Amino acid sequence: MAESPNLETLRHSTSHVMAEAVKELFPDVLLAIGPSIETGFYYDLDMPHKLTEEDLPKIEEKMKEIIGRGEKFERQEISRAEATKQMKKAGEIYKVEILNEILDEKVTLYKNGNFLDLCRGPHIKSTKEIKAFKLLSIAGAYWRGSEKNKMLQRIYGTAFESQKELDAHLKFLEEAERRDHRKLGKQLDLFNIFQEEAGAGLVYYYPKGAVLKETIENFLKDEHRKRGYETVIIPHIAKADLWHRSGHFEYYREFMYSMKIEEQDYVVKPMNCPGHILIFKRKLRSYRDLPIRYFELGTVYRHEKSGVLHGLLRVRGFTQDDAHIFCTHKQLKDEIIKVIDFAFDMMKVFGFEYEIDLSTRPEKFVGTKENWEHATDALINALKSKGETYKIDEGAGVFYGPKIDIKLRDAIGRLWQGPTIQVDFNLPERFDLTYTGEDGKEHRPAMIHRVVLGSMERFIGALIEHYAGAFPVWLSPVQVAVLPIADRHLEYSKKVKDELFESGIRVEIDDRREKIGHKIREAEMQKTPYMMILGDKEMESNSVSVRARHKGDLGAAKLDEFISSIKEEIAGKK
Amino acid sequence: MAESPNLETLRHSTSHVMAEAVKELFPDVLLAIGPSIETGFYYDLDMPHKLTEEDLPKIEEKMKEIIGRGEKFERQEISRAEATKQMKKAGEIYKVEILNEILDEKVTLYKNGNFLDLCRGPHIKSTKEIKAFKLLSIAGAYWRGSEKNKMLQRIYGTAFESQKELDAHLKFLEEAERRDHRKLGKQLDLFNIFQEEAGAGLVYYYPKGAVLKETIENFLKDEHRKRGYETVIIPHIAKADLWHRSGHFEYYREFMYSMKIEEQDYVVKPMNCPGHILIFKRKLRSYRDLPIRYFELGTVYRHEKSGVLHGLLRVRGFTQDDAHIFCTHKQLKDEIIKVIDFAFDMMKVFGFEYEIDLSTRPEKFVGTKENWEHATDALINALKSKGETYKIDEGAGVFYGPKIDIKLRDAIGRLWQGPTIQVDFNLPERFDLTYTGEDGKEHRPAMIHRVVLGSMERFIGALIEHYAGAFPVWLSPVQVAVLPIADRHLEYSKKVKDELFESGIRVEIDDRREKIGHKIREAEMQKTPYMMILGDKEMESNSVSVRARHKGDLGAAKLDEFISSIKEEIAGKK
Repeated sequence: MAESPNLETLRHSTSHVMAEAVKELFPDVLLAIGPSIETGFYYDLDMPHKLTEEDLPKIEEKMKEIIGRGEKFERQEISRAEATKQMKKAGEIYKVEILNEILDEKVTLYKNGNFLDLCRGPHIKSTKEIKAFKLLSIAGAYWRGSEKNKMLQRIYGTAFESQKELDAHLKFLEEAERRDHRKLGKQLDLFNIFQEEAGAGLVYYYPKGAVLKETIENFLKDEHRKRGYETVIIPHIAKADLWHRSGHFEYYREFMYSMKIEEQDYVVKPMNCPGHILIFKRKLRSYRDLPIRYFELGTVYRHEKSGVLHGLLRVRGFTQDDAHIFCTHKQLKDEIIKVIDFAFDMMKVFGFEYEIDLSTRPEKFVGTKENWEHATDALINALKSKGETYKIDEGAGVFYGPKIDIKLRDAIGRLWQGPTIQVDFNLPERFDLTYTGEDGKEHRPAMIHRVVLGSMERFIGALIEHYAGAFPVWLSPVQVAVLPIADRHLEYSKKVKDELFESGIRVEIDDRREKIGHKIREAEMQKTPYMMILGDKEMESNSVSVRARHKGDLGAAKLDEFISSIKEEIAGKK
Repeated sequence: MAESPNLETLRHSTSHVMAEAVKELFPDVLLAIGPSIETGFYYDLDMPHKLTEEDLPKIEEKMKEIIGRGEKFERQEISRAEATKQMKKAGEIYKVEILNEILDEKVTLYKNGNFLDLCRGPHIKSTKEIKAFKLLSIAGAYWRGSEKNKMLQRIYGTAFESQKELDAHLKFLEEAERRDHRKLGKQLDLFNIFQEEAGAGLVYYYPKGAVLKETIENFLKDEHRKRGYETVIIPHIAKADLWHRSGHFEYYREFMYSMKIEEQDYVVKPMNCPGHILIFKRKLRSYRDLPIRYFELGTVYRHEKSGVLHGLLRVRGFTQDDAHIFCTHKQLKDEIIKVIDFAFDMMKVFGFEYEIDLSTRPEKFVGTKENWEHATDALINALKSKGETYKIDEGAGVFYGPKIDIKLRDAIGRLWQGPTIQVDFNLPERFDLTYTGEDGKEHRPAMIHRVVLGSMERFIGALIEHYAGAFPVWLSPVQVAVLPIADRHLEYSKKVKDELFESGIRVEIDDRREKIGHKIREAEMQKTPYMMILGDKEMESNSVSVRARHKGDLGAAKLDEFISSIKEEIAGKK
């Protein structure tokens, strides 16, 4: 039995086999690139035939045939000139373009059967080694990712060492698909992006999505207040000067939306820091004023190419739960501990596990080495004092300070970008921030940028997938669905609904002339946590029959009992 | 005794006398225009001498001298050509420019003493009739209001028929100055506009201003929920297409901030309607779904010339408490009544009186006459059913529907723009909004645009001036100032502060080593509604001594008693 190949090699080889199969089926295909990726592989192809999902089983069949042939992978090292000649002859214009950019004199080709590809390798020995693979989907992809180039056809697939692993992965994909926030966003009527009418990457929250967003935001506001943050509010547009001063303009201008106002340059703010800094700078500061913690649910706009936009996860406009902490260098560690505590508390509320990365000083940096060491130690000590394990990314910090990134692990094990804690030595310098120390002299404060949930859009996207849309009661846009069995129960149902509404419960009534079974199914589809089935019995006994999502009938209850129990559940964020 | 002249005439004549006085003091002055205005008069002057406040008493002295001379006002009707010749000779280039634009063959000049002015009149008979006047201020003003022209010097003054009326007006001005929201905004540390650094007309809320804004906004959110509105959230930028479709682009483009994204035209939204309409249109609607009421605290950006910007009252970015109601034409009256009720309830909470204007169909209009009549009747009947008096502005409606404007009357009698209720027949047509009626056919819904407080910025500006910064407790950024008498009371004071904080009271501690009298004065300056003076006595008896703003000592109390009483006051919005 062959030695178990490296998974990456296996997938890369499977990608060659896939391209070979396509070429046998559609001989006029041109090959672009076909790498292995984290969860499988793809190949970008240029061909007149427009691929559809129906082509995938045919290609899979052909692949099985190739695997059955047990074709050997042969490595050939030849001169770049010779390779270019061969590829030109084969009409493989994309390979020729790649070859033109290779500087080495020698390149390698891999051949299996009649299939030849420009490729660094390595590969498996024989196509026979491919035991378990699956083609997953077709997508469009611009050659080299640029919308100025031709749109190619991409086939995604995956391969594993055993059918069992493949099956597990396919089940995971199915589960991920079931949780897709774009699909659930539509099904649960939460939000939309009106790409054609109003622009790509810009989110419109429907009433139910707005409830979800505001519920989380109100919770955040409360928590920030409790933890000694002060809220500030800044405009969405500002003079570009602020970003010249901050130094962002030079590196960041292509991500900023610019306009002219009375012949001056303005931008839609891509970040909140300069505004918060102006507010900090409005008066002379003493060490007694510090730390100062400014919080804002600040909506920012950053350009992303339309090709990379993805539901709520990658957008052009998003709200950050953004804060800037101005403190003495001595206070740094304590402030960081507080932020970490804050972040962990939030993760617990939403039921996320997490992983922690610490990024330290890169080659190019601003500030003194002493300050960097002090700040990095502060971050490390803060994590240690919490007994947290973390990964150190040596030299991976941004030039202006070390940072901690916390990644959230969701219900099916995927990682999402979460809290970030970034020390900044640059902006205090550039904006000449000072405070008077106990010694009566001027000092430069340290500055921390931090988000706890990050982008509200991304977090809501993650949350939808994490809960598969079945939000805990406190987050549910509709907490109770009142379902009258027949028209004669409408009046009583409305009374029940009004009482719930006045108790601050989010309630909807389904007053359509539909069978009760149908109403229940729809409420379950909407993932409403509680349903109240109201018929003759309930009316007579002045009670309610309660049904819980996924759990079925909970039996009869008095309305006020139910109200106090659901209120407790909401308050406890269970 | 001379007949009492019309106040406008009196003021206009006083403006001539002022210009005459300036000319006698500074002979090289050139005259631009000098009209009477609602509260007095001004004259725009072009002269090398830069006027200061110190010049005003000198000019007043000279005016008194001229009044004492009892100069007669003489009207001369002469040909435009002759007037132009005279003015050219006198070097009065602004008058020549005005004359060039007059079409009549004859013009009138007015002469008193040696002072000659191009003027339609009428005027008083003699300068002797001026009994009570006052010069108020100096300002810069562009010739013809355009920043492309030269900046002139404007002197503002006022005149009344009696010294008593003038005194009352000056007292009113003093009071208005004391209440100036820009001054109080600074004194109470509420907000700022960083014109130089970040741009004109864009408001930055400091922590205390943000508390004020969010307190009002949270109250609004609650009230909207209770009244059956659903919150939606839309982005701040969108494709310009939306405003082409709405028809605004043509008329409104100069007020919109534009940018390019991937070669498409985008704007910073100047209004929320198109976004809310997209959300309405997301599904097929039946008469059973209506009315639908979408609410959003939507921040919009509209261009205003820098010259007209004024504190919070005239800005370039503002948050509206905006809602759009989609309903059947039958539901229109009921919906309008509900909005009026809502508006009146809000006015009561903030202690504003009000005046109501109703604007009806103009010459040019969209929609059918029947619909206009129906909607206008709905507005009138709604007002009548509330027993409200109102003024009808015949033909003053906008082309797309009739509207109600409610103006707020503040504590010193000034009017501020408040709620607006606007019926719209245009947008439902342009966006092809429909619902299925009871008859199974498609119908066009009616649409109401409405704001209750209007622009949050303007409302907060009005509110600061209305309350002269002494907000009721529920709105006060700091509700209680804890004032330890000496350092030995610090610990106890912090305990008191923490307890207040945990009860949700907005509290600050003044822990500086300052005399208690000084601390009290500062808290009064900050218009903090309650102060707690904590010394030996309070510590020993575990109590607090309470002082109320403007009222002085309220005596000792137990802390928990105080907390429940202030909480009641806050909940009652007293």
